[in-house]
Amino acid sequence: MTIKHDNPQQAELAFYQAFEQGDLATMTSLWENSDDIVCVHPMGAALRGTQAVSEAWREILAGEVNMRFAIEEIHVTRVGSIAIHIVKEHISVPGGKPVAPMIATNIYRESTDGWRMILHHASPSPGIPLGQSAPAVH
Amino acid sequence: MTIKHDNPQQAELAFYQAFEQGDLATMTSLWENSDDIVCVHPMGAALRGTQAVSEAWREILAGEVNMRFAIEEIHVTRVGSIAIHIVKEHISVPGGKPVAPMIATNIYRESTDGWRMILHHASPSPGIPLGQSAPAVH
Repeated sequence: MTIKHDNPQQAELAFYQAFEQGDLATMTSLWENSDDIVCVHPMGAALRGTQAVSEAWREILAGEVNMRFAIEEIHVTRVGSIAIHIVKEHISVPGGKPVAPMIATNIYRESTDGWRMILHHASPSPGIPLGQSAPAVH
Repeated sequence: MTIKHDNPQQAELAFYQAFEQGDLATMTSLWENSDDIVCVHPMGAALRGTQAVSEAWREILAGEVNMRFAIEEIHVTRVGSIAIHIVKEHISVPGGKPVAPMIATNIYRESTDGWRMILHHASPSPGIPLGQSAPAVH
């Protein structure tokens, strides 16, 4: 299913929905189809180009883990046809253990096909997983 | 010392030189001076704005560790006044233990002050530290 996203916020929503739903077709279609895309999963290598990026998503989304995302927007910069989103991904797994939040840089580019993802770089943050209480702060 | 960088490659070179040399003044001056900048150190939080970003660099560059960087360019995208560089940072510490390489997304924006950094997002990669041999690949 290919949907044209009129703004980067819509593309980002579709990204996390596809991630939650394990929807590979939507996930791959919301990326730009080019050698110009890069995806870095947490603690992972930098994957470049449609084939490498799609293959990694196929493996990830085939997993049994049912993740839920609450996205905290940290900063958004839009310059012309480029939108740079830095977000904190608060991840939960229903019935599972708390998961550490991730920091992600998501970049979208506008073309005649609407806004498509060109970069996703996620890495573990030092935050507190959902479901755990915060340590005392002094 | 504030230097105007005519292209993003020059700004990136200055970034890693300042990092190696522990040169805080150059490091802070090569970032855009705005609330629009974000810096994510490996396993760190997303720091936003000149004050938070500079303070973290002050602490990092005050450390005794003498790091050397060999930068492997993975991908560069330039769209108008934005340049997105994804690089692999091969880090070595003279006389020290091998350090795992990092993947960094570095973004530069052009203004009347030349090209300035607006984002640095670094995270550990699964690569082989310099000085260690690679495992057998099958």
